[in-house]
Formats: sequence, structure tokens, C-alpha cells
Amino acid sequence: MRSVTVELGSRSYPIHIGRGLLSRAELVLARMSVPRAVVVSNEVVAPLYLDRLVTALRGAGVDVSTLVLPDGEIHKDRASLDAIHDALLAGCAERSTTLIALGGGVTGDVAGFAAATYQRGMPFIQVPTTLLAQVDSSVGGKTGINHPLGKNMIGAFHQPRLVLADLDTLDTLPERELKAGLAEVIKYGLIRDREFLAWLEENVERLTAREAEALAFAIERSCIDKAQVVAADETESGLRAILNFGHSFGHAIEAGAGYGVWLHGEAVAAGTMMAAELSHRLGWLDEPDVARIESLLGRAGLPVRGPALGVDRYLDLMSHDKKMEAGRLRLVLLARIGEALVHAGAPEAEIRAAIAARSADHSRQ
Amino acid sequence: MRSVTVELGSRSYPIHIGRGLLSRAELVLARMSVPRAVVVSNEVVAPLYLDRLVTALRGAGVDVSTLVLPDGEIHKDRASLDAIHDALLAGCAERSTTLIALGGGVTGDVAGFAAATYQRGMPFIQVPTTLLAQVDSSVGGKTGINHPLGKNMIGAFHQPRLVLADLDTLDTLPERELKAGLAEVIKYGLIRDREFLAWLEENVERLTAREAEALAFAIERSCIDKAQVVAADETESGLRAILNFGHSFGHAIEAGAGYGVWLHGEAVAAGTMMAAELSHRLGWLDEPDVARIESLLGRAGLPVRGPALGVDRYLDLMSHDKKMEAGRLRLVLLARIGEALVHAGAPEAEIRAAIAARSADHSRQ
Repeated sequence: MRSVTVELGSRSYPIHIGRGLLSRAELVLARMSVPRAVVVSNEVVAPLYLDRLVTALRGAGVDVSTLVLPDGEIHKDRASLDAIHDALLAGCAERSTTLIALGGGVTGDVAGFAAATYQRGMPFIQVPTTLLAQVDSSVGGKTGINHPLGKNMIGAFHQPRLVLADLDTLDTLPERELKAGLAEVIKYGLIRDREFLAWLEENVERLTAREAEALAFAIERSCIDKAQVVAADETESGLRAILNFGHSFGHAIEAGAGYGVWLHGEAVAAGTMMAAELSHRLGWLDEPDVARIESLLGRAGLPVRGPALGVDRYLDLMSHDKKMEAGRLRLVLLARIGEALVHAGAPEAEIRAAIAARSADHSRQ
Repeated sequence: MRSVTVELGSRSYPIHIGRGLLSRAELVLARMSVPRAVVVSNEVVAPLYLDRLVTALRGAGVDVSTLVLPDGEIHKDRASLDAIHDALLAGCAERSTTLIALGGGVTGDVAGFAAATYQRGMPFIQVPTTLLAQVDSSVGGKTGINHPLGKNMIGAFHQPRLVLADLDTLDTLPERELKAGLAEVIKYGLIRDREFLAWLEENVERLTAREAEALAFAIERSCIDKAQVVAADETESGLRAILNFGHSFGHAIEAGAGYGVWLHGEAVAAGTMMAAELSHRLGWLDEPDVARIESLLGRAGLPVRGPALGVDRYLDLMSHDKKMEAGRLRLVLLARIGEALVHAGAPEAEIRAAIAARSADHSRQ
């Protein structure tokens, strides 16, 4: 088992990464206030892993109840949030009860937000079962739901007490979701970790082939990168924004295509290309840099071009994103490979050109 | 103008108390990140005071939009929360935009929760227009909405940047609401401020007669008491719980009678008598102490007896309240006049007896 700590003073917490962790109830129990838990999962993950986790917890003397929600980005909404709150109230969950999310990013985000707002905050544990959730969404305390007018618009910062990344759960992960997770892994290399990027360029096929040692290393390294950024800027007043690299464009793709049509990681991959293209147009990356990024994303089986929404629609959707500052788009771009920066000064014409060049709109022009 | 500071490090904020403050836009502007604001009010307060505030802010160069919600505890619900989020999104409010609540406790609690959860937290300013909101709910960062199964069950801690208590707004406050606010004022005396309690026993009729100097003093003193408790324990891990004196019983009264039938302050007054009665039964207060509390509440025009819900119903509703610990009711009681304590060991029979003795159920036995 590998462990990474997110350093947040009295709210620091461990991320454990390894095989067989769903059965290691002692790891969970050590992070609870009282031995009472509600496990929230989804209808895809629950049949595979819920019993394993619940049996282990009950064996350790934890009073456990469960709630299974529908799966998919389209259910990262008010209805799911309300369903969790209703179940907590109906089951008389106390402020000291722990909410455990067993599932991917959607389950973790919605359950985390429910935990953040139930009785103004209850203990929360993440048990991510997708690569994307293990390397990104389960770490760092961002929780929330989507709104018809924008992704993750309603939410809160609420750090988990523990993240338990059981590699066994990746065995059943659909191919497409595994690849989507790699978009966030590659992101860490691009924004702050050239050494890791070089490793990925050597080993990306070992990851798509699910080689256990390679996956464990990539997850640990991603969590170390994310933990360092989160520790430095928990609530995104500065540095943390670099984690949104590719996401402003990506959120527009997800919303424009209809939530759930593009997986989050797929949209981030195409958004990464738009951000790289814009960084090139602003003179920070050269052509070979952009080609290098496109090649790696392509080898990971990820899309490198956004859908044909029309450039106006992209801009409209991006203006509803959270990354606005005094009416200007704040975008995360690359000063060079391995170094991100936040920039609110990109001319609209260049943003338009970057979207057009890296979306299917291009082919129609 | 009197000012009290809530000391919370970098998140410290002032409470200004005085006449004519709605027009003092410079006080508001000084606490905003950017000169953009959305003012949330309710249909009772808006016709009286919204123009005054908005005109002043616009005169100071602030870009202001407004949203008016229905009034009343019954609207402290998901629908109002959603309405605020919808309006913020539709108006493209940014994370740096300030949400301003102009109204009583319901408006402040719902708007504050909307601000806490919009884009994971936006700046928030409280402009309380009821005595209860000025002395209690606008101070300290508790925000939230009710759930059909319990009051304030869904919420967050989100401190305001500023509290602006304009005494002018009390001129139009209905008699019944003024008296309800006095329940929270008297609470501070009972739980931690014997000197203030003595002053109230001298001056309560000056408050019910709305003497300006007496009101200003009582509001300032209440805010000082609350600010000290909040500064010592922002998220209620300990001391802050004493502010809930009378509230576990009171919440049961509000929910049992149907939200809005009893005003919050009225329910707290009757709940105060139940808590005092229980403190007496546990041997901490003597009969004259209880009579002294009943006399002061009575002079303030407040109910000293809960409705006839049936003792079982009281206990059932209280078990859904947040103040549970490992299945036991945690109640705030009085060790003596002027000193509260949190106690989870009261025998159920004594709790039942206290409810019966201080509710209309008693008269039917």
C-alpha cells in the first residue's frame, strides 16, 4: 500500500493506494468520529463493490446503512443531492455520522456536497472506483453539483477524512473511462511535473494495458502533485487554479454536448488541446510542444478535438463558467511544458481561433 | 453609530449599529471585492427599504441587481435556495460578486446559504431588518434552510463580510416580531451575562416601547456577547452550543406547530422555560430562578408555555434535531442564572416532565 498525505493542518488526511483496500475496515474506522456510517454508491458500482465494503465495516463493528443512486453526470444534480439529504434525515443520521462515497467522480462530488451541507458539515470519506476519481476528484475537497447553466456551479469546499483508492476496482472499469482518467494524469505532467510527463511518454501504453505497477505509480504521483497544490492553496485563491488546465474549454464541451455525452476526461483532453493551441498563439509554446501534447493524448486513446458546437456557443458556455474575473475569461495556459499560469488577458480573437483550430468546427470552415 | 467586531483572523468583520445606515453605501463598498452586488430581499421588506439601499449603492458606482422572494419561515426551503442560484446564474454573477441579504432571519439564512454554495462560496453581506436578525441570526455565519424533517438541517458555515443593522428598519417591525426578537436578547443574559440580564429586568418595557437608545444598547450588547462566543468557537465544536439554549425545545415547537405558526423567538421563549424547568428538576436552578425567567419573558410579551403537541411528539421532533450525540439528546441547560452548560445526561423522564410542565399539554393532564 502506498500512502500520500494532504497537508492541511488539523484537517490533514491520508490517501491510501493499493489492492484489497475495500476490505481494510480498520483504515476507515481509524478516521471516523463514531462507528456509524452511511455509504452512498451508484447502481453500476454498488453491485460490484458495495457488499465488500459494507461487510468489512460491519465486521469491524460499524453501524452501516446504504443508499444507491442512479449513475452518470446527468445525475450530478439537485435531485441526487436532495435524495441523500432525505435519506440522512429519514435515517436520523447525526452530525458525527460519516458519509462514505463509493463510486466515481459524480458520486464523490454529490455525496461530498451532501456531507458538506448536512447539519452544516458531517465527516466524509472518499472511496473512488474510477481512475479519474482516484487521481483527481476524490482529492482536495471540491464538492458540488451541476446546474443547467453550468457545471459544478453549486458546491462547497469540504475535505474528506480519508481517500481509499483500491486498485482492484479499476479491473472492472470500462476502457473508455480508464482512458478518460488518463487526461487528468497527463494534466499533472503538463502543468507542474516535467519528470512525470517524461515517464508518461515512456509508459502510457502500460497504463492503457492496466499494468498494476504502472497504474499504482501514476496514481501515487498524480495524488502527490495534487496534494501539494491543494496544501498550498486549499480554496483556490491562487495557485490551485492551475488544476483547471483544459477545464474551461472542457466544461463548455460537456455542457454543449449535453452532460454525459462526453466523459469529463474526454472533454478535458480536447480542452487541453485548445489551451495548448492558445498558449502557442500567445507565443509561449512552439509547434513541436503542441504536437507533443497531441501525440501523448492520442496514444492514451483520448480525443484531441472538440465537438462542432460553433465558436459562439463555446464562448457563451465559457462565460457561465466559474473562471470569470471582472467580465474577462481567466484561462489556465502553459508558459512552457511543465509550467502553467493563469491569464485573463487573452484577446477574444485568439481564443476564438484556438477553439476553431481544435474543434470539429474547423473542418466546416 | 456603534460598531462591534467579530474576531476571526483574516475573516474578521464589523457589525455596524445605528440610524440611517441603509444609505451609507461607503460602509458596504469598503467590504466588497468588486463593485458588483445582487440584493436578495423579501416581498414585505423590499417595498419598504430596497430602493433606499439600491439607490445608495448605485450612487456609489455599484452594479446592483435585485431578487425578491416570498416571506416567511415556510419559504426557508429548497425552492427559495434554488431561486437564488437560478437568478445568480441567469445574471452571470461571478465568484467575486457580493450577495447582500436585506430582510429578517429567513432571508439572511437562505441568502447566506446560497452565497456559501454558489461557485463554492461568494462574498456575503447581511442587512438585517428585524430585531431577531440584528441580535442573532445575521451574526456568526450560520446559514441554511429547513427540511420537512427538521429545522436548519441543510446548511453551511459562511461568515458575512459585514453586518449592517439599521435601527430605522425596526420602526416598521410588527409588534409581535419585535417581542420575538427579545427572546434572543434575554437568552444572552441567561447564558453568559448576568449584568445584561439585570439591565433587561430594569429596562424591558423601554425595549417593547421601542426607545431608540435602549434598543441600540441591547442590540450592541447582544452582538458583543454573540461575537465573543463565535470568535471562541466558530463551528460549534464546543462553547458555541450554548447559543442554542431553549432551541431544541423551540425547534420542536416550530416544527410541530407547522413552520411559521409560531415565530422562532416565540418558540425559543417557550423552549427557554422548558430548559429552565429541566435545569430546576436537575437541581441547578431553584424555584425563584425559574419564576424570575418566566416573569421577564412575560413582561417582554412572550409565551412561557409551549403548544399541546403531546410529549411523545416533542421528543420525536427533538430526536431529529442536530443536537444528538450517540443517540442521546444534548441539551443546553443552566448551571445557574448567567451560566449555561451542555448536558447529554438528562433522564428521559425528567425531560418529559419538563415538557409537560411547561406546555399546554399540562393543563389537559
